[in-house]
Amino acid sequence: MQIRLMNDADRPALWSVIEEAVRRGETLAVPMDASSDEAIDWWTSGKEAVFLAEIDGQVAGSYYLKPNQAGNASHIANAGYVVGESGRGRGIATALCTHSLAEARRRGYLAMQFNFVVETNEVAVRLWRKLGFEILATIPRAFRHPARGMVGAHVMWQSLER
Amino acid sequence: MQIRLMNDADRPALWSVIEEAVRRGETLAVPMDASSDEAIDWWTSGKEAVFLAEIDGQVAGSYYLKPNQAGNASHIANAGYVVGESGRGRGIATALCTHSLAEARRRGYLAMQFNFVVETNEVAVRLWRKLGFEILATIPRAFRHPARGMVGAHVMWQSLER
Repeated sequence: MQIRLMNDADRPALWSVIEEAVRRGETLAVPMDASSDEAIDWWTSGKEAVFLAEIDGQVAGSYYLKPNQAGNASHIANAGYVVGESGRGRGIATALCTHSLAEARRRGYLAMQFNFVVETNEVAVRLWRKLGFEILATIPRAFRHPARGMVGAHVMWQSLER
Repeated sequence: MQIRLMNDADRPALWSVIEEAVRRGETLAVPMDASSDEAIDWWTSGKEAVFLAEIDGQVAGSYYLKPNQAGNASHIANAGYVVGESGRGRGIATALCTHSLAEARRRGYLAMQFNFVVETNEVAVRLWRKLGFEILATIPRAFRHPARGMVGAHVMWQSLER
């Protein structure tokens, strides 16, 4: 697996990775009926960096990294991750998150925060905890899950200071 | 006091209200050295609506309103408030927040969330609690306060469902 920066030519490959998650509407806070351009822009615009994971030359996942807030709060990073359906169970999410934590440290961030982890996305919640994140809060009824109704969303955080 | 929608001609008046808060750097997550255009853009762009409070025809405060997240999470509103130095102690923040909660309800939002209330901004924290918000979490060391060093920031929330 190789993790590298995304460029504009990768937009179709990124869409192939996020399309199913967008359409399912169970984990991402983006309109389920977003066009490919809208969804790709939502993932990439205003970000500090967007990375892709490739397996055998095929894009299999992505993450973005950015400051969660500006100014005197810009030392906390924010990131989001997505893995394509066909890449599940191959450790891609773990690799992306591990890479993002190292990258955030390298760029001088002192912590990483996720603002919105849907609580029914149990595989993700378990993985982020395993990788050092703690749940700071659960926002009640924060997400309209297509199958499970109103569910909560976690704010997750970890220090990058040693 | 009158609260009304902002338009482009109000940009200088908005700057006169937020300038001191931007330069002090004690409450807002925006660069302290932001230009007026940068600060005004930070306050207004990507927002659903920006309102101004006027007293005797003078702009004294402002708030913005927007969905905190998109898609299946777009039923939670987010807002930010600022009151000019000369308007302190006149109930402007209370009026702005009360107006924003009614406006959010009117627009169909089911809750309001603040992502980043600096914990040393005690006047604001007390006021938001009085107006129905609860602290869901405090992000540790989330803000570099110019005088007090690293301080926390609260995630605050209230339901708008009855």
